[in-house]
Order: sequence, then C-alpha cells, then structure tokens
Amino acid sequence: MTSSSVSGGVQEVCQNLMHLPLNAMEVCWIKDIVVAVTGENMDAMKGIIQKYQHQRISLVEAGVTRHRSIFNGLKALAEDQPDSKLSKPEVVIIHDAVRPFVEEDVLLKVVTAAKECGAAGAIRPLVSTVISPSADGCLDHSLERARHRASEMPQAFLFDVIYEAYQQCSDYDLEFGTECLHLALKYGHIKAKLVEGSPDLWKVTYKRDLYAAESIIKERISQHICLVMDTKDENHVGHRLEEVLKDELNHVKVTSRLPCHTGRDLDQIMSEQCYSYVCVNVMTSDFEEIRKLVNMLEESNLSILYPVVVISVYFLDYKSVPFDQKMENLMQIREYAKEVKKRNILLCGLLIYYPQVFYLPQDPSCLT
Amino acid sequence: MTSSSVSGGVQEVCQNLMHLPLNAMEVCWIKDIVVAVTGENMDAMKGIIQKYQHQRISLVEAGVTRHRSIFNGLKALAEDQPDSKLSKPEVVIIHDAVRPFVEEDVLLKVVTAAKECGAAGAIRPLVSTVISPSADGCLDHSLERARHRASEMPQAFLFDVIYEAYQQCSDYDLEFGTECLHLALKYGHIKAKLVEGSPDLWKVTYKRDLYAAESIIKERISQHICLVMDTKDENHVGHRLEEVLKDELNHVKVTSRLPCHTGRDLDQIMSEQCYSYVCVNVMTSDFEEIRKLVNMLEESNLSILYPVVVISVYFLDYKSVPFDQKMENLMQIREYAKEVKKRNILLCGLLIYYPQVFYLPQDPSCLT
Repeated sequence: MTSSSVSGGVQEVCQNLMHLPLNAMEVCWIKDIVVAVTGENMDAMKGIIQKYQHQRISLVEAGVTRHRSIFNGLKALAEDQPDSKLSKPEVVIIHDAVRPFVEEDVLLKVVTAAKECGAAGAIRPLVSTVISPSADGCLDHSLERARHRASEMPQAFLFDVIYEAYQQCSDYDLEFGTECLHLALKYGHIKAKLVEGSPDLWKVTYKRDLYAAESIIKERISQHICLVMDTKDENHVGHRLEEVLKDELNHVKVTSRLPCHTGRDLDQIMSEQCYSYVCVNVMTSDFEEIRKLVNMLEESNLSILYPVVVISVYFLDYKSVPFDQKMENLMQIREYAKEVKKRNILLCGLLIYYPQVFYLPQDPSCLT
Repeated sequence: MTSSSVSGGVQEVCQNLMHLPLNAMEVCWIKDIVVAVTGENMDAMKGIIQKYQHQRISLVEAGVTRHRSIFNGLKALAEDQPDSKLSKPEVVIIHDAVRPFVEEDVLLKVVTAAKECGAAGAIRPLVSTVISPSADGCLDHSLERARHRASEMPQAFLFDVIYEAYQQCSDYDLEFGTECLHLALKYGHIKAKLVEGSPDLWKVTYKRDLYAAESIIKERISQHICLVMDTKDENHVGHRLEEVLKDELNHVKVTSRLPCHTGRDLDQIMSEQCYSYVCVNVMTSDFEEIRKLVNMLEESNLSILYPVVVISVYFLDYKSVPFDQKMENLMQIREYAKEVKKRNILLCGLLIYYPQVFYLPQDPSCLT
C-alpha cells in the first residue's frame, strides 16, 4: 500500500460526535469524515464544525439503531448520491465517536489489513469472563476467556464489501445487530483480519469514563510544549533550550516554530492546539508579539476548558538596553498578565541579561 | 434470611488489596475478611492493616493464578486449619480488590441468592461485542451481544459448595481458569443465580481506571459533611444548619455528632473518614476543642492524599464576651490555620455575634 492510494481512498463514518479531541481528525490521509448525528443534535454539530472550521466533515441523519446510522453514512459515500461533494472511497473506516483517543497507528493497521483481506477490526483482551444466562436468570455456561476477544473500533472495509453487506441486511440485522465484522462475514463471506488495539480504544460509556477521558486530555495537554522563537540562529540559547527540553522531559512533545520573515506565523502556531508556550525573544525587547499570540489564544477559545500557560523569555543585551527600560518592560508584562489571567491565560515574563562574555566576573560564585 | 444468620456466616476472600476504600470493609455483617497477598507485598499489607486498625482482616499467601489465590483463601476459612482464629462460614463472598466501589446492596443480593441457590454472581451488560478468533488471527464468529453478559464480582457461595469444587479442581482449572461460577457448575452442578450489578463494579485495570477511581473518591469525599455540635439544644441554630444543609445539598450526606457529656467523642468522629467538618461551638469560646480535632485529623493521616476542610463557627454572646477577647480569638485561629495548612488541613474560623433579641436595632438594614 502506498500512502497516496490511501490518502485518496479512505473515508470515515462516525456514529456520533462528542466534543472531544478526535485524533482521527488530525490524520491527513483520511479524505472525508461522515458523521451520523441525531436530528436534535444536528444544529449543535453544525455549530461545532463551523466553530472549529472542520473542512472534511459531512453530516448525515443518524438512524434509530447503530447499524442504521452506519448504513446512512455509507449511503452518503456511495456514488449514486446526487448533489454530494463526496465520492466513493476504496476503503472506509467505521469508528465510534465515543472512542475519541484512537491513534493513527491503529487506523493505518486496519486500513492496510482491509485492503488485503476485505475487512479488519481492532480487538482487545476480555477484562471479564463472558457468560450466557438461561431464561430463568441463572448461569447456563461461561466462555473460556482466553479463546475470546472484545471487538472494538476502528474497523476498516473495502467499501464495496461493507456497502453490499448492508444492502443485503435483513431488518432484524439492522434492528438488533451491532457488529459490522459479522455482516461482512455473513453477507460477503469475508473473514475479517483482527488487529490488536491499545487500551486507549475503550468506549466512553459511564460517568467514570468521562472522568478518565478528562484526565487523559489533561495529561496530554501537559505533555506538549510549543517553543516559539524569533531567531533562526541555531547556536542561540533558544535552540539549545529545545534540545534540553527534549532530553529532560522524556514524554513531552516539543514543537518548535520559527518566525516567517514578515513576523511569526501565528496561524500555524494556533493549529497546534497546544496549552503550553515558551516564547524566546531575541530580536525584540517589546512585547507586541506576545500580545498578538495571547490575542489569538483568546480568540481560539482554547482556554475555556483548561488554562493556557505562556512563558515569554526576553534576552536583552546588557549594553544596548538601559536598566530603566528593562524594568518598564517587566512592569508592563506584569500588568498585562493580571489582565489575561481573567481569561484563563497564565502569562509569565522572564528577562534575561545577555552580557558579552568579557563582562563576566572572574569569580563564578558572584553569578549565583 | 435473617440478618443474624448472615452476620454470623459471611466471610470475604479478596484476591489483592489496593490502598483504596473498600466499601466491603464497612459492611458490619461480614465477619471475617481474608486477603490473598503476594509475598513481596505482605509487609506493606500488614502495615496498612496495622495503620488503619482493621480488625477483621486475615492474610494468606497469594497463589500464582487467580484460582490458586482464591483456593488459599478458602483453605484458611475451612475448619481443618489449626491455629486459626477463623471459623468455617455458611456463605462466602469472593471479590476482587480491584473493584473497590462495591456497594452493600449488591453484596446482600449475592449472599441472599447464594443461600437460596448455592451460588450467585453479579453480571453487567457487555460494552463491546465478543468474538472468537481463528488460529490465523481472523474472525471465526461473533457472539450475539444481547444473549451474553460480563461476569463481574462479587460472587457468593455456600461455603461447602465452592470449597468442594476447588478441592476437585484439576491443575488445568487452577492454572488457566478464571470463573468461580464455572467451577460451582462443573463440580457442584450448581447453576448460579445471576444478579444485575451497578456500573461501579468495574475492574480498575488500566491507567485511565486509576484516573476514574481518583475522581470517584474525590466526588464521594466532597459529598459528606460532618457537623460537630457542642449542644443538644434542638432549637439551636446548629441544628437548623443541619436541616438547611440536608435540604440544600441534595446529594450530600450530612452526619451530625453530639458531644458526650465529658466532651466530644472524637474517636467516633474520626471513624467517619470524612474530609469536611463544620464545628458549631456554643458552649465554649476558646478553640481547644478544634485543636483536639485537628490533632486527631493530623494523626489519622487523612490529609495525606486530599485536603481536609474544617470550618469552626463560634456563637459568642454579645454581652458576656468582650470585643477584645473576640478579636484575640480570631487572631489565634488565623495563626493556627496558617500552621495546619502545611499539613493539608484547611481551617477556617467564623465568629458570630449572638445578641439578645432586645438588642437588635429597629432598622433591619443596619444589620447588613
């Protein structure tokens, strides 16, 4: 499989969409995303799409059951739909929006396997033993846990395989069925390839799962630092900072952004959806650039749910910037920080003396 | 079933014990609790039992598999054990310590059903479809979700039924089996009664489950207020406060504690493991009582994980307590609060004027 054939041929059907970070939306080789939404949530969903400017999402009306919703999504992707901006894909991924932490890796695995076998799905080991009850509410038999697996999402299919299976479905299937792999087997005689998924694929089902989801989001947020630098000089301490952060904070993703020659590419920075910024200012001692960043953060509404932290570091030349002006800068940042704190943006300014080496005192202990 | 027959006959075997609030420990009709612990955790477990002064817990060495651990626990409860303080129970509950939020209600249900049928276990609907893979990692068949259930814990058995089943177990059962209900069926021909459990019975398995568990604990902590009063006068505002709190905070449990005539029964108060205290002081204007409470909270180590909040309200008679003394009280509490904050105890003092009615000014607006 080449990545280009995938990028042209993969689309995604979501059953519902919660207002949670759907990692799948960040996967560039997914061409279209079709979301099945109930009538009552349609307006809210349209609002979310508009607010976050999602380009690849189309909406279809959800059915009363899982299978009917998925079938509606597939119909929207089939070629015979008039007035549709969508085109029939080679491979389709089916996913539940209540599994918001799906990783690109498992999406790629199921797509690759589906191209090979016609169908593929993620599985997980069973956490509890599965039993079959008798009609009187007693144990009839229990299944051997090691011989069974939980079927999770995402699943991927050659589009024709799953669409034809849905077209042949009985009303009973559409009403009471839950398993797409089963339909591919029953109507397409395709034995789906099973792909081991990560624990992150779990379904946000109970209140406790919302707690867990919130904690996972917070953890992820805290593990991404965006370094914004206004110099390309690779010997500068800002670039060294990047190396140090990457070395010291093993699990932390450090993205660094260089400025365009006309100023910083703030749009690109905002697309990171990052909550922690370290801005290294060498070329300027005013804080207009930080004001621009903070303004864009405010407009993005990123800080509604969680605080955004911005640390702005100024490297000021000992000789060229007088002490009074430095103090004035400091006071300005402090006042501005008070103001933006009300919008859940925590701004911290740091002024660093930048003397020529020959100004260093002989005795290093004086530096403490 | 009468409660006396249960209180004399129920014991509990836990596989492991995490340092989480096991609700089962608070159930008074459970006579003994046997915990299977691995050798490496034995000392830590003994430390926990000593620290929290658990009277009903006995420890046995865990086996290398689930069934071997449970068998060890059952052996400890069987009559033929010499030097044991334990006696053979009529009914035994088997539970996983990784399901720390079990409620008394479901424990009672499985015990009642076990007395009737010989065996009973909690079940939950399946969250995912269960499938059976073939040897080459493809889908062999999928199970109809509506016809199957997840077998959870707790489970309860007539002791003789489950003990005899374990005695007949093959090595294969002990090594690869996971389901106690299956053993009761296979060796005792007992079809266990299945009891619908609550979502709270889930197994703390993955990192996200620890997040969820922590949030549930925090939520529970925040929903219990202990009111400590030094007056039995039911017309006093302290008792009115209890009524108001109960009315206003629908989901909050309000426990109120009256003092013994020799002083407050602090031991009883501490046994609540409550994190929020409102102390109503009418009889005294010094804060020796609060000091005693805070000291006991410190000794209990309750505040190691989460902050403990103590609000101490003093009702001072306008005439009998001079203004200077009142201010002195206030300053004392403030200083003391600073000190205990370091130990994660957040103390807040509130002094309330308590004038005779005839001292009230004519114009009520003066009171604001």
